[in-house]
Amino acid sequence: MKKESIAIDMDGVVANVEVHFIDWYNEEYDANIIQDDLKGKSEDDAFPVPGIIKKYANTEGFFRTVPVMEGAVDAVKRLNESYEVYLVSAAMEFPRSLLEKRAWIEEHFPFIDWKHIVFCGDKSIVGTDYMIDDHTKNLDPFEGRKLLFDAFHNLEVSGYHRAGSWQEVLHFFEKES
Amino acid sequence: MKKESIAIDMDGVVANVEVHFIDWYNEEYDANIIQDDLKGKSEDDAFPVPGIIKKYANTEGFFRTVPVMEGAVDAVKRLNESYEVYLVSAAMEFPRSLLEKRAWIEEHFPFIDWKHIVFCGDKSIVGTDYMIDDHTKNLDPFEGRKLLFDAFHNLEVSGYHRAGSWQEVLHFFEKES
Repeated sequence: MKKESIAIDMDGVVANVEVHFIDWYNEEYDANIIQDDLKGKSEDDAFPVPGIIKKYANTEGFFRTVPVMEGAVDAVKRLNESYEVYLVSAAMEFPRSLLEKRAWIEEHFPFIDWKHIVFCGDKSIVGTDYMIDDHTKNLDPFEGRKLLFDAFHNLEVSGYHRAGSWQEVLHFFEKES
Repeated sequence: MKKESIAIDMDGVVANVEVHFIDWYNEEYDANIIQDDLKGKSEDDAFPVPGIIKKYANTEGFFRTVPVMEGAVDAVKRLNESYEVYLVSAAMEFPRSLLEKRAWIEEHFPFIDWKHIVFCGDKSIVGTDYMIDDHTKNLDPFEGRKLLFDAFHNLEVSGYHRAGSWQEVLHFFEKES
């Protein structure tokens, strides 16, 4: 039987960009922002200085050095045993990120073959069976089973299956199988 | 009504890599290969020197300077008026090509938004309504309507809707609408 497939988002799902944005911001502005400060805010209003997220996302080295989300490597490795796992990132907005993300995956997720990496713009062409993403705009047009990964900017949203950690993602798929 | 979507391959479909490989080969080896010499051969056996295609595909500047397939710009522009057009390339195999392909699209197909560019590995996750490709391995797992674009390496294959030029692609879609 053909394995079912999962499209897993990068930023905010396997890559902890939230912590990375905060670290870079605190360093540049000598500030003391913590994760709780961002909760419930939009990406545009996340930081006191406007445009921070786009600025850092366009800065060389940002995506290459982002820390891995806690538990992501082991969980993706486990899912990869039973599913066709694809890492799918809307990387096209930030061309600089393309090579950095490719190298980042090779470093942290070497068991994901290049054939299973997708860099796109909008994700409406993704035809996998499952999608794990922190953005409802990516999940909404998707026709398969959806899992919303908690992020500061999506905490107010309701009506989605949610996972607050990679442990919860594994629980979700245990119930599915 | 939601527009139908088309995934259009790059190499061998909108980008004339065949002519580009021949030009580079003739230049390097002082040879006189012409397109007829490649007909019916596989990509591996296309040139007297083995490994030429992978070598050039990994060479800086190759994808940035590939000529556009005759008629492709006008035809894609026309399709883009009635369909959601995506340029979808299996670029992940050659990381060096990622930025070059992104810049090439911006130069030759500036009307294709970054949201409609996809760089992937295998194309089995592509869930568009149509796919135009010169490789049967990409069309075979695809569940929508398929159009095989003629290339030297696919001339022996039968059982596909075919287009030998961008004019024929437009004819195909005129009959569809």
